[in-house]
Amino acid sequence: MEFTINQIAGMLKGEIQGNGLEKINMLGKIQDAKKGQIAFLANPKYEQYIYTTQASAVIVKKDFLPRKEISTTLILVEDPYSSFTLLLEEYHRAINFQKTGIEEPSFIGKNTSVGGNCYRGAFSYIGNNVTIGDNVKIYPHVYVGDGVSIGNNTILHSNVTVYAGAKIGSHCELHSGTVIGSDGFGFAPQEDGSYKAIPQLGNVIIEDHVSIGANTVIDCATLYGDATIIHKGVKLDNLIQIAHNVEIGKNTVIAAQAGISGSTKVGESNIIAGQVGIAGHLVIANNTSIGAQAGISKSIKEEGQRIIGYPAFDVKDYFKSYAVFKRLPDLNDRLRELEKKVHQNNSIVQEEVEGDE
Amino acid sequence: MEFTINQIAGMLKGEIQGNGLEKINMLGKIQDAKKGQIAFLANPKYEQYIYTTQASAVIVKKDFLPRKEISTTLILVEDPYSSFTLLLEEYHRAINFQKTGIEEPSFIGKNTSVGGNCYRGAFSYIGNNVTIGDNVKIYPHVYVGDGVSIGNNTILHSNVTVYAGAKIGSHCELHSGTVIGSDGFGFAPQEDGSYKAIPQLGNVIIEDHVSIGANTVIDCATLYGDATIIHKGVKLDNLIQIAHNVEIGKNTVIAAQAGISGSTKVGESNIIAGQVGIAGHLVIANNTSIGAQAGISKSIKEEGQRIIGYPAFDVKDYFKSYAVFKRLPDLNDRLRELEKKVHQNNSIVQEEVEGDE
Amino acid sequence: MEFTINQIAGMLKGEIQGNGLEKINMLGKIQDAKKGQIAFLANPKYEQYIYTTQASAVIVKKDFLPRKEISTTLILVEDPYSSFTLLLEEYHRAINFQKTGIEEPSFIGKNTSVGGNCYRGAFSYIGNNVTIGDNVKIYPHVYVGDGVSIGNNTILHSNVTVYAGAKIGSHCELHSGTVIGSDGFGFAPQEDGSYKAIPQLGNVIIEDHVSIGANTVIDCATLYGDATIIHKGVKLDNLIQIAHNVEIGKNTVIAAQAGISGSTKVGESNIIAGQVGIAGHLVIANNTSIGAQAGISKSIKEEGQRIIGYPAFDVKDYFKSYAVFKRLPDLNDRLRELEKKVHQNNSIVQEEVEGDE
Repeated sequence: MEFTINQIAGMLKGEIQGNGLEKINMLGKIQDAKKGQIAFLANPKYEQYIYTTQASAVIVKKDFLPRKEISTTLILVEDPYSSFTLLLEEYHRAINFQKTGIEEPSFIGKNTSVGGNCYRGAFSYIGNNVTIGDNVKIYPHVYVGDGVSIGNNTILHSNVTVYAGAKIGSHCELHSGTVIGSDGFGFAPQEDGSYKAIPQLGNVIIEDHVSIGANTVIDCATLYGDATIIHKGVKLDNLIQIAHNVEIGKNTVIAAQAGISGSTKVGESNIIAGQVGIAGHLVIANNTSIGAQAGISKSIKEEGQRIIGYPAFDVKDYFKSYAVFKRLPDLNDRLRELEKKVHQNNSIVQEEVEGDE
Repeated sequence: MEFTINQIAGMLKGEIQGNGLEKINMLGKIQDAKKGQIAFLANPKYEQYIYTTQASAVIVKKDFLPRKEISTTLILVEDPYSSFTLLLEEYHRAINFQKTGIEEPSFIGKNTSVGGNCYRGAFSYIGNNVTIGDNVKIYPHVYVGDGVSIGNNTILHSNVTVYAGAKIGSHCELHSGTVIGSDGFGFAPQEDGSYKAIPQLGNVIIEDHVSIGANTVIDCATLYGDATIIHKGVKLDNLIQIAHNVEIGKNTVIAAQAGISGSTKVGESNIIAGQVGIAGHLVIANNTSIGAQAGISKSIKEEGQRIIGYPAFDVKDYFKSYAVFKRLPDLNDRLRELEKKVHQNNSIVQEEVEGDE
Repeated sequence: MEFTINQIAGMLKGEIQGNGLEKINMLGKIQDAKKGQIAFLANPKYEQYIYTTQASAVIVKKDFLPRKEISTTLILVEDPYSSFTLLLEEYHRAINFQKTGIEEPSFIGKNTSVGGNCYRGAFSYIGNNVTIGDNVKIYPHVYVGDGVSIGNNTILHSNVTVYAGAKIGSHCELHSGTVIGSDGFGFAPQEDGSYKAIPQLGNVIIEDHVSIGANTVIDCATLYGDATIIHKGVKLDNLIQIAHNVEIGKNTVIAAQAGISGSTKVGESNIIAGQVGIAGHLVIANNTSIGAQAGISKSIKEEGQRIIGYPAFDVKDYFKSYAVFKRLPDLNDRLRELEKKVHQNNSIVQEEVEGDE
């Protein structure tokens, strides 16, 4: 992946001052970029570096007026930061999607269709009756069970496991070690104290534009015909537990190590912090914000709440209570002191009253 | 897997009303089942659907009297729900155990024996001196280290790792990403502030009928000859941490993301909720129930307790304390108010007393 | 791996009483060791077993005087426990490093160099432009992405994933299922409520002598040129989350299921207990000790503190507050009682005062 400065300027609709033929193969920071790299200058604090940078090109605001001689090539644009972000995204996409073709040995089952421009890494396993869209990247050691479908432009990183029957949308990214469709945790107690597994025959549906971090687990639904559903645009971090029959609403974001218990429905646009635990069979309203390590034991009916604690309640109230919690030994002492005083006063008052008689 | 209605009715010891020759290949719900599927009717609320269902067969109670014409075939049984559950179990077992034979490439070491009717998926790795029973299913990308033994009818899903020497019983199911026998976390502090690894030479023993979820980790014991032991019938959910030398008693159930620290002995028939943490070197009595996110820092000696909180104590007492916690700012205000009043009264009383003199 | 007692005595600089030619292939405990095993006697409580042990050799203190006849061979040393520990370490090292050579099929990319005495297990995948030192052990199903470097004497257990570009030092051990270099969790909110992934272009650097447990995740840094850094001698347990741009100082120890959020810098020689959560963008001073399940929401500036709770504060103060928390319903009752009394006294005093007028 190498572009000329001319090509990049074209992409950014920018104007060039300097040598547009030089080649760029990497992005960098203005203060330590090297030859072959492109950097940007947005914050005036960093202006000093533009006069010494080794970068082959720097993206600057179009009204930028150098105060000294400049040896690097400039690309003048409306908004240098946005332009650089655009390059970052292009670069990232290029990196992620650069692998194509089939590395051997890899395994593919019967009645399975794979779209155009896909990558199937060595030791990847794709079962029978699988449908895979275009431009899908299946990294080494990925397991895709029978009957799975995967939409276009989706990436499954190394060691991802997708159990039979799961449906994964387009533009999804699943990071390494993530498991989709393992059995829900359902066991029926028997009279002798043992447990019998309740067969887990449901499914997992992951809609489009969903990102899932590393080593996260999403269990399948219990009953045939039901599904654990991750709606469009949901972003899940690493090491998250999503139990059977859970539903996560559109554009909800969940941080690492949070866990959602069985059959709970999380609304849209929730922000759920790290290590949060949500009990089973609850409904969480849209736009709920749940603080780190909170434990949710009741449904949240009103939208837009910010809660924390175990069990969780309003975040401001929690911190007020917690402020007193930290002073509880003092509170206890003051109460004891007061009890003594009141007991004493009481005696005096009693004496007074008796004395009056 | 396709059965005639006659075959299914035979399995359920039910009586047929309709065409017993039609073929069934799937289970479904009465309200949305399709041709080729079988459903059940137990709850009268759903009776309406039996007159319109597309299911090829419906399991009903033997005294069921249709009030309208029915086009589906009926299987009449004593208890439709139990019968359907039985089918679910059979179906699930059939699905889970349907794979047999060896997919290539797969790796098998020396002096290793594999029983009859096993499945060894592509890219599965089985080391030297391994003993594998009958009807064991080793999915793709499973790693089984040297000297491991695995009993009959056990399933290891894709990407399970079993370190050298571990012993796994019969009728166990290990879900994807689970790691058995990784090193215990033991490090000896050195004088220079660094740590030296204490060699972990012990083992893991998993008894019969144990289920383990996805991405759970069970460390080996520290000393040679010792073992981390998961007793018969234990059910572990996803993303659980079981440290070195832990012992989990028979029929104990542990929910996702809980963690048990080194050398702790958990009793039988415990119910341990999600995200619970148990410190090391403790003993937890039988029939203990531990609430979500609880932290256990002391041994639980009395059986049958229900505890929660950090550190955990009786669940009812915890919630009573927590109810007051939520009102702590108010309590604080009331205490301050009272202090003022008492101070005031005190002054008045003092004046009174002094006035009396 | 088999040694004569003579060879072992030479290694331990010990003196032999008995047959030095017998062969040892395993370590054991004196009370249940078998022929071919070596045990030790340090604690006098266990002396009885030396007269009956089946062990082929026992390591004893050099001034040990048997009170009965002994059939096993003795190795006399200064400190039997240290000598046995030394053997344990040697044995462990021998076990861990015994695998060498290449098992097929395995995958290796272009421009990749692998040092001497390495092991590359079947189904291991090593990408392009990778540099691997001497005596490195790459177990089956390991994925090493393009451009990764790995120092000497490092072990990657089965199913470890290392994303492109990560740098791993010498004498490191990474347990199964661990993921190095997955994308940081960074998403920019868009006007329509959706989120757009912020490209994660940074790196992970793991210095020498770092141990990482099973199923732990370390995300890469966000910007190109930045890195998530795990410094020398750090020990990480299982199922830990290390977010993008985190830095963990030298010789810090982190227990299972803890999570460190993005851009936080943890100091040196910290001891962080299980299930701890640390918020993002914080600085934690050296020698901080953080209790289990604590939540850290502010930087810790003073070194050597011991903290717990959520949010965490001094561990002693926490337990004092918690002791009162457990009695909060009682406190509440006492406060109410007192309010009544004061109200009553108040009335009496008021009457008195009024009566005096």
